[in-house]
Amino acid sequence: MNNLIEKVNQKLEEYMDIRYPESIFNSMKYTVTLPGKRLRPVMCLEACRIFGGNIEDAMPIACAIEMLHAQSLIHDDLPCMDNDDFRRGKPSNHKVFGEAIATLAGDALLSYGPQLIIEKSVNLPPERVLKVLREYTKIAGAYGLIAGQVVDIESEGDESVKNAETLEFIHTHKTADLFRLALKSGAIIAGASDTKIQEMDDLAQKFGIAFQIYDDILDEISTFEDLGKTIGKDKASGKLTYVSLYGLEDSKKKLNSLFAEIYDIIDKYHSEILKNIVKQMELKIAK
Amino acid sequence: MNNLIEKVNQKLEEYMDIRYPESIFNSMKYTVTLPGKRLRPVMCLEACRIFGGNIEDAMPIACAIEMLHAQSLIHDDLPCMDNDDFRRGKPSNHKVFGEAIATLAGDALLSYGPQLIIEKSVNLPPERVLKVLREYTKIAGAYGLIAGQVVDIESEGDESVKNAETLEFIHTHKTADLFRLALKSGAIIAGASDTKIQEMDDLAQKFGIAFQIYDDILDEISTFEDLGKTIGKDKASGKLTYVSLYGLEDSKKKLNSLFAEIYDIIDKYHSEILKNIVKQMELKIAK
Repeated sequence: MNNLIEKVNQKLEEYMDIRYPESIFNSMKYTVTLPGKRLRPVMCLEACRIFGGNIEDAMPIACAIEMLHAQSLIHDDLPCMDNDDFRRGKPSNHKVFGEAIATLAGDALLSYGPQLIIEKSVNLPPERVLKVLREYTKIAGAYGLIAGQVVDIESEGDESVKNAETLEFIHTHKTADLFRLALKSGAIIAGASDTKIQEMDDLAQKFGIAFQIYDDILDEISTFEDLGKTIGKDKASGKLTYVSLYGLEDSKKKLNSLFAEIYDIIDKYHSEILKNIVKQMELKIAK
Repeated sequence: MNNLIEKVNQKLEEYMDIRYPESIFNSMKYTVTLPGKRLRPVMCLEACRIFGGNIEDAMPIACAIEMLHAQSLIHDDLPCMDNDDFRRGKPSNHKVFGEAIATLAGDALLSYGPQLIIEKSVNLPPERVLKVLREYTKIAGAYGLIAGQVVDIESEGDESVKNAETLEFIHTHKTADLFRLALKSGAIIAGASDTKIQEMDDLAQKFGIAFQIYDDILDEISTFEDLGKTIGKDKASGKLTYVSLYGLEDSKKKLNSLFAEIYDIIDKYHSEILKNIVKQMELKIAK
């Protein structure tokens, strides 16, 4: 696991080289290389390994997913969205580079990921590269992440839509979709069958929802120092979360039942890495 | 020409269908379908025809270029960028949908174009589709349009960089790159040779710079009613333009000499459509 994180960090450093005009490349690099657990790229590489692929082949898409994740963080933090001044314990992108450059850095990351995938995958079957790009573009746009973000924003002031269905839609797209892209694209690069790709899709959906419940619980029980971002904002703004909808105890129950389902799937694939990721979440909540 | 514009408008209408959550799709559609001359998609289709391709095959990339153009307009108009309230005579996107949705609509368009290209080109050779996507992603990002926009923003307050080299860099990327994408991708879809694709690149570079000089001259000599956007802002903000650097008369001379070079290239390809586009620009300036 640590070995994979290190590999991903090295590649991100390599890919995010600084060109003219430097401000935009510095701004892109700033958020992409913030220290993090690199969960999504690691899961992408692991899915590739599970299905017999060479993880080096999955490295461009793994890094592109981290860039897409960074893009969504940069734009979510903007004053016109969540207006957040901190991210992973550091000033958010627009606090360092200004709003104009931060907006453009997010835009640039949306294209740079696919550009890398194409340029670095010249030795892979073009059909496979196109299949990955099809998943990427769908999930990066209004059918994926952005659909989740829009419903999240619009539900904030509207009590009539604060229900389980809305919550599920938001986090299927805002959270699960990036894990879906990670596990599916790793499997695609390895040449897995459509049935196996679909199994990764199901696993990612369960994992994504579990991850969001976990995140909502942490937001409820942690401090700024623990998480490195503004805490309790969701509660203060009356945002729809698992904890606000189900309460802390029922959220924990829901999470544990999802963990059980996820372990069942992971065990079939004998993946120590995926198992460890879930185990660490379980331990953190149990504390 | 009018026939092609009509075809493009029909396809844009078809592609921009409204799904849940409606606000984001409405916002995307609003700017993409604003009335316009559809110069870029028409030039893409014409390049495809010139090299013996079927223009229906180039329709997804032609429309994706119009979406990319709309994306750049939406984000350029944001308060943190040019802060423009009007575009093509209508309120700009964020004035209608708010800043958050406008930001997300721009983001979504950046992925929706490539998504369409992939989904609608299943009968084309995958290598050709990847080649088009490689051009698209490079030009949409920090190696293309965004590089131009960043240098444009940063040169505004800095007298020391207000020179011909900066101006050329800005408009090679901010303006010529979209025409480059249009002509090159049309040629790629038709299966043109790399030499021919390079010729289209050269033509697009000349055309793009001519188009920008033309635009700067119009901004100097027109009224709001003529153009449907705020006029004289460039001058008021001390922005670097061809007219501010060379003066009105020398800009016109430079433009006419570019027109002559462009006609030389176009004549080789016997393209009435490209010729008409340039002719109309020439007539408008001569008035």
